[in-house]
Amino acid sequence: MLDGELISMENVVFRSYIWWCGVLTLKMFAMSILTGLWRFIKATFANPEDLMSPKLKVKFDDPDVERVRRAHRNDLENILPFFIIGLLYTLTNPSTFLAVNLFRAVGISRIVHTLVYAVVVVPQPARALAFFVALGSTAYMALQVVAAAF
Amino acid sequence: MLDGELISMENVVFRSYIWWCGVLTLKMFAMSILTGLWRFIKATFANPEDLMSPKLKVKFDDPDVERVRRAHRNDLENILPFFIIGLLYTLTNPSTFLAVNLFRAVGISRIVHTLVYAVVVVPQPARALAFFVALGSTAYMALQVVAAAF
Amino acid sequence: MLDGELISMENVVFRSYIWWCGVLTLKMFAMSILTGLWRFIKATFANPEDLMSPKLKVKFDDPDVERVRRAHRNDLENILPFFIIGLLYTLTNPSTFLAVNLFRAVGISRIVHTLVYAVVVVPQPARALAFFVALGSTAYMALQVVAAAF
Repeated sequence: MLDGELISMENVVFRSYIWWCGVLTLKMFAMSILTGLWRFIKATFANPEDLMSPKLKVKFDDPDVERVRRAHRNDLENILPFFIIGLLYTLTNPSTFLAVNLFRAVGISRIVHTLVYAVVVVPQPARALAFFVALGSTAYMALQVVAAAF
Repeated sequence: MLDGELISMENVVFRSYIWWCGVLTLKMFAMSILTGLWRFIKATFANPEDLMSPKLKVKFDDPDVERVRRAHRNDLENILPFFIIGLLYTLTNPSTFLAVNLFRAVGISRIVHTLVYAVVVVPQPARALAFFVALGSTAYMALQVVAAAF
Repeated sequence: MLDGELISMENVVFRSYIWWCGVLTLKMFAMSILTGLWRFIKATFANPEDLMSPKLKVKFDDPDVERVRRAHRNDLENILPFFIIGLLYTLTNPSTFLAVNLFRAVGISRIVHTLVYAVVVVPQPARALAFFVALGSTAYMALQVVAAAF
């Protein structure tokens, strides 16, 4: 197959890639909504124009708000690089079985990461494991992309 | 049209997509410049090696610097996922009219978001509206991408 | 060459682009590892469930941890937009010589940025120069992408 032809709904690897991109984007947006919910529940706003009552003051240290924000930032650090590396890895024409399972590993482990970090706090090493499965899988894809460029 | 052929300057949807990617990237870079300007105006630096005078100390709580940084982070959370989802949505061969207007909605509302957040502070719900128009449009595209992957 | 055909290992510009995407993704992941190392060395954890001993408390102001986190955030602000703009710039069929050297400029200057910011602190303007070389190169590509969309 020529490289450009790999970008096709006929290509199972590409379909798997776009599925997880869509799902993980929606998951990341859920972090924004969750941050907003906690801001209202805890009356913790970062901007004067957001304060619902003149009695409130801006506040930056609510533990529930900050926990969701840390989980969200971790998404930016890990999911966003996956979005581009997953596409480029797809263009290296990898084994279908391996590629589909790597995407699945990233997708599921990033959802688990969110659940154990920002929804129901689970003791370590739950979050560390979820973090490293996604990071390891994406790093492997990045190495394959680098190898393909030689 | 075959999927790969959608990545073409002949495709009006793709041209609209790349236009907004270019514009929004430049807009995001403007946030870096604006942060730097405020750091100099307010003499608020985050690193010892950045201090312009031995009398200064590192400072992390200047409201003007932090406001631009919050706006910038919000860009990372919303514009960066749009960059990939907009491309994948283009590859689903959507209606030209709908796609071009969704991209326009994201592009314009993210520029408005920056203006009312970090340039001239406008009372709510200005920022919330701009935020949700872009988030809603991108989430719709993500759902279409997920649907196309079935 | 038709646009879609530019996405090909036969295209030297595309090969250069994917090489730097792979390298810079691995570099960004190194920031996560480095943050983790400093957290252990300085016993500075952001979550109660991460504390290794009941005597520790969560801590958010360790200068070494925060320095790496600032460098990492700067990567998110600059490398992630490059990932998409570099791809779209490749699709504008640019001069091979110019494109390959722009990608090289971004790649090398972002690695230098990390080294002088988060590994061995080098006095300014080292970091500022590295920052502006990458920002300027990516902004030029973004302008070419916008021009191609007219």
